Amino acid sequence: MTHQPSTPTTASPHREARARPVAPAGPRRGLGVGELRLDGGVWGALQETNARATLRHCLDWMEQLGWLGNFDRVAEGTTGGDRPGWQFSDSEVYKLLEALAWEYGRTGDPATDALLGKVVDRVSAAQDDDGYLNTCFGHAGQPGRYTDLSSGHELYVTGHLLQAAVARVRTVGDGALVEVARRAADHVCREFGADGRGSDGQVGICGHPEIEVGLAELGRALDEPRYTEQARLFIERRGRGTLAPPALLSPAYFQDDVPVRDADVWRGHAVRALYLAAGAVDVAVDTHDDGLRAAVERQWTRSVERRTYLTGGMGSRHQDEGFGDDWELPPDRAYCETCAGVASVMVSWRLLLATGEVRYADLIERTLYNVVATSPRADGRAFFYANPLQQREPGADVRPDAVNPRAEGGVRAPWFDVSCCPTNVARTLASWQAYAALVEEAPDGGTVVTLAQYAAGDLRIVLDDGLDDGLDDGRVLALRITTDYPHDGRVRVEVTEVPAWPVTLRLRVPHWADGATLTGPDGSTRAVGPGWAESVPQSDQPTDSPGQVRRVSRPVRGPLGSGSGPEQALAAGDVVTLDLPVGPRLTWPDPRVDAVRGTVAVERGPLVLALESVDLPDGVVLDQVRLDPGVEPRAHGDGAVVRALAVPLPDGGAGTPPFAVARPGGPGDAGPADVGGPAGLDLPLVPYHRWAERGPSTMRVFIPTTSREESR
Amino acid sequence: MTHQPSTPTTASPHREARARPVAPAGPRRGLGVGELRLDGGVWGALQETNARATLRHCLDWMEQLGWLGNFDRVAEGTTGGDRPGWQFSDSEVYKLLEALAWEYGRTGDPATDALLGKVVDRVSAAQDDDGYLNTCFGHAGQPGRYTDLSSGHELYVTGHLLQAAVARVRTVGDGALVEVARRAADHVCREFGADGRGSDGQVGICGHPEIEVGLAELGRALDEPRYTEQARLFIERRGRGTLAPPALLSPAYFQDDVPVRDADVWRGHAVRALYLAAGAVDVAVDTHDDGLRAAVERQWTRSVERRTYLTGGMGSRHQDEGFGDDWELPPDRAYCETCAGVASVMVSWRLLLATGEVRYADLIERTLYNVVATSPRADGRAFFYANPLQQREPGADVRPDAVNPRAEGGVRAPWFDVSCCPTNVARTLASWQAYAALVEEAPDGGTVVTLAQYAAGDLRIVLDDGLDDGLDDGRVLALRITTDYPHDGRVRVEVTEVPAWPVTLRLRVPHWADGATLTGPDGSTRAVGPGWAESVPQSDQPTDSPGQVRRVSRPVRGPLGSGSGPEQALAAGDVVTLDLPVGPRLTWPDPRVDAVRGTVAVERGPLVLALESVDLPDGVVLDQVRLDPGVEPRAHGDGAVVRALAVPLPDGGAGTPPFAVARPGGPGDAGPADVGGPAGLDLPLVPYHRWAERGPSTMRVFIPTTSREESR
Repeated sequence: MTHQPSTPTTASPHREARARPVAPAGPRRGLGVGELRLDGGVWGALQETNARATLRHCLDWMEQLGWLGNFDRVAEGTTGGDRPGWQFSDSEVYKLLEALAWEYGRTGDPATDALLGKVVDRVSAAQDDDGYLNTCFGHAGQPGRYTDLSSGHELYVTGHLLQAAVARVRTVGDGALVEVARRAADHVCREFGADGRGSDGQVGICGHPEIEVGLAELGRALDEPRYTEQARLFIERRGRGTLAPPALLSPAYFQDDVPVRDADVWRGHAVRALYLAAGAVDVAVDTHDDGLRAAVERQWTRSVERRTYLTGGMGSRHQDEGFGDDWELPPDRAYCETCAGVASVMVSWRLLLATGEVRYADLIERTLYNVVATSPRADGRAFFYANPLQQREPGADVRPDAVNPRAEGGVRAPWFDVSCCPTNVARTLASWQAYAALVEEAPDGGTVVTLAQYAAGDLRIVLDDGLDDGLDDGRVLALRITTDYPHDGRVRVEVTEVPAWPVTLRLRVPHWADGATLTGPDGSTRAVGPGWAESVPQSDQPTDSPGQVRRVSRPVRGPLGSGSGPEQALAAGDVVTLDLPVGPRLTWPDPRVDAVRGTVAVERGPLVLALESVDLPDGVVLDQVRLDPGVEPRAHGDGAVVRALAVPLPDGGAGTPPFAVARPGGPGDAGPADVGGPAGLDLPLVPYHRWAERGPSTMRVFIPTTSREESR
Repeated sequence: MTHQPSTPTTASPHREARARPVAPAGPRRGLGVGELRLDGGVWGALQETNARATLRHCLDWMEQLGWLGNFDRVAEGTTGGDRPGWQFSDSEVYKLLEALAWEYGRTGDPATDALLGKVVDRVSAAQDDDGYLNTCFGHAGQPGRYTDLSSGHELYVTGHLLQAAVARVRTVGDGALVEVARRAADHVCREFGADGRGSDGQVGICGHPEIEVGLAELGRALDEPRYTEQARLFIERRGRGTLAPPALLSPAYFQDDVPVRDADVWRGHAVRALYLAAGAVDVAVDTHDDGLRAAVERQWTRSVERRTYLTGGMGSRHQDEGFGDDWELPPDRAYCETCAGVASVMVSWRLLLATGEVRYADLIERTLYNVVATSPRADGRAFFYANPLQQREPGADVRPDAVNPRAEGGVRAPWFDVSCCPTNVARTLASWQAYAALVEEAPDGGTVVTLAQYAAGDLRIVLDDGLDDGLDDGRVLALRITTDYPHDGRVRVEVTEVPAWPVTLRLRVPHWADGATLTGPDGSTRAVGPGWAESVPQSDQPTDSPGQVRRVSRPVRGPLGSGSGPEQALAAGDVVTLDLPVGPRLTWPDPRVDAVRGTVAVERGPLVLALESVDLPDGVVLDQVRLDPGVEPRAHGDGAVVRALAVPLPDGGAGTPPFAVARPGGPGDAGPADVGGPAGLDLPLVPYHRWAERGPSTMRVFIPTTSREESR
């Protein structure tokens, strides 16, 4: 008997397994969105709010602003005049379609499917006979097709259409959206193929990458290698300086400065850089281009180690929404666009599938909790666009019922002039399950299931037993995951059903988890270090970059689970418990991160914590707070309590810039150690992702320390 | 006999005295550009290079790029099609005209006058019959006049035309440029007057302030109160939200959020905020509007004390070229646009004239040395646009022979896409003398001359003796200033000629000068603290915010200088010597300036110093340097030498963002105090304004300190 993890084939679509955004060939897959039912918790709640409020919220705004109506006007032939929205507004409709598709795949809710169908009808009606589909170009009173590849976002928009279609292929198989996308992709291949635009060294790429990742995945979903080849062409054409940069910017803005395979680091507009990298991994994997894959891994490494915030946020600069130089990570002007967080998860997830290295899962967790989850308001009807790590002025200039410029901190806004973030959050939350676990085949024919993210719920995977009999008997792996993570560090996994062959369960021990333990099915507890921890130890060393999985040592069981294996075998009823140390801890910046010298942050498990001014005692302002690193922070609610002092601030009034010959806190000046009282203040910190929910506030993630030298 | 400082009257123009950019009514005036002949030194050299190289450089670039040709095309009626340059390119021509006018006023060089005349001919030919003059709007194939007041810069451009005309009025009296400006100003008054555009609450102002300051000064120069009234209308209409902000920006971008008289601080685009403030001071002074003047003084105070860099640079943000929040002063992303430095000098100079407060002169000096002087390359043919205080990557992406995006540090560029800075530097350097001294009438009828900036040279002022006889006899004050300031702190002032009435000489003791002494004509030396120090002490207290000048105690001399006064009287041959402590000193940031916590800067007199990587020993990178604040820096060349250690840097390679549970330098980690050797390194610092002259380099103004706690 042979058996494999389910893969989407048109002959035998296992809807539940293939319902995931990224499905490369290879030994490793993520979950289908229907394979894990969340049971509350942070992600369960966010997903529920997304389903209940955000999807409709996005639809309503786009209807009201005329972004949906743009499709009607093309269909009716009434284009021309002032067109509502930016040139890329179609993409918001497509990202919402993607979210609706995943949501329907996850729940089977017919109302969601009906909503999607209505939007698809309007989109479909706007498609030109030759497959071209765009409401901003190519029709009466509009600029011609592909007349502004540098800034027009035409192919970017199409890329999002293709991603939406992927969600539909993988959840329902086919339908109008899939056909629309197929025709649009064919059109792109005709226009931009090896002999088309771009083949002559002229511009043959889009200023905003996205088409690459869309084509590559639709190629996988529809088993259409032409699309992959087209994605490869787009990747290869980039970095050769053909695009015309916007005023005052350079080719690095859209990664047209250096070919992807030659670049050492991400630079320029963060979302562009990351969408491009995601597409490059897809192409590299599908074309077995190890050099290209290694380039993206190299870029990931340097960019994460030098250009990424504690939150996982990427993009230090507002000017170009871009990466800064190495170590340029100012907390107050951190851009950390929500969409860059989504895009970072896309890249890391692809690299995790390709390599199995735990560091990618670690960054995904950091980014999901501290960027993606930070954006939506608790009611799912307002969002952060930028996610700074310090707020100097209480933000109050958001118009609660109107389109806003980008919300840069302080108050979440219902919608934006450029409103890429809400729909990006929506599609990510609707497909969150995909990133929760890895399923792979072990060399000996067993199955390895790896929990990459933790959330309470029921996991049920129907594995491929090679019998093609349509029966689930003996090929189901089911786990019941019970946890209050990250509030609590215990993750209890009960095996409720096993297939007829050996299964290895692995759990991720995050890089910050110093002192984690794992209790196996036999009740014995052992220490596990950061990396992938196997429920039944195969060695004393946890493996943090396996690449491949060790052989399972127990004998293969029969197809119907007859007989019990040796003592270490996983069986229905087995319980594995991981205990992660999620108490608050101090986190210190690398000394090259100049902007936070002399400060410390507090984290708790995967959560970055923040100090908000609403939690300060009367008469104390945030600038006065000095955290005492000699006192261990302690857990408090979902956050922590830290010991701090309130120091006096200089009077100012010198009529000069705020720099002086006298050293603040130096001899003759009241230093911080002299004030605040011996007991100091106990100040509560909250999870960063829930800041700004109690009215306008100032906020800090990195808090200056009390030590006499540092708090000056 | 009555006598007054010269004021420009059409009846009796004292060309030398009135040849200055700002001439409000009031007791206090600056110098005419011909009243001080510089004798080398920093400013003499910069002014000479400006005259010899920069003026022609700017003209050549504008000719080559077609910005001058734009005027020809309007004159020839061949507008339409692609117009070279931004919509504000005319203003660069006008700023160059202003520079040429001052340069001619300063030197009388006929070639300069001829060059100016040729440009004026082309400009003049492009003026419409009704006085409208703009090469971007209002002609065939162009948008209509005033159809884009928010972003079109039409009135901004006109404002610069008027400033150029002011320079011409004050140096030659009249001529073609003056007539062109008068007609343009009359046109503006007709279009935007009390009953014109803007009178109905619709937009009646320009997105970029500048017309205000141009109208106000031309009103003074031509004795035309209508212009002042029009400037007042523009000031009053602003801050009422009539302008349409560019995408993603808010009304604060162009100060249309709050009326000028109600605002507490500068915000939004720095150059706009500062040009507006300069115009507001002019209007306030001329209309005796104390509330408006107080508003600008209030804004100056808070903005300087909380939103201004050590260099005097203003504008923390690249995104909108704007001010940041209070204390938001990142050194690496400091925008500190050169033009904002010029504009800051404009505002402070007007407030100095209005109030006599020394703090304005202090900020002018700081800004001139560390922003304005930083921009031009030594040869006067390349410029910095932005002036950051830290350079992380050696800047090498400037195209040396082409138009560049903004040079943001690292390498000065010959010209820019938006090339406002070169001509702004040029007009400022050509009129530098204007800001060097104040001349005012004392209540008893004597004359007070105050040296506000120090440079070697000969000052010769022909005062008004009220006789109107055209003779200079007995009304000349002449000083010979000998100094190598700021390299050396001694300023020797020899009185070479005195008028027939008492003269008081005052010298500025900068706010940083702790331990200054002044040696009077009688050879006695006394300590003088920061503020205005009188050459012959009137009291023991220096006065730092006089508002008015103390009465001169000696008897008035006869009109022909007959008889000698009491012992304390200044007479020809008297020598006054100021000794300022210009040795290097450590300067510490206010603890609220988060971005430079744990660092110190080194200044020397008015110069901010910088550490460049080209001065590091082999094998040491800038990130490793920790300055030892326990060792006094010592003077070295024009800069200093500091004691420092080179600390090891973390290995990185964790695959996570650059933050860690382990405290860098903490127990178990090699701390900075453990390495670098007992002797440490002696590192030279150079004046910031001369950095980046020895090839690509990384650079820091604020240097982390060695103290164990701070260098982590």
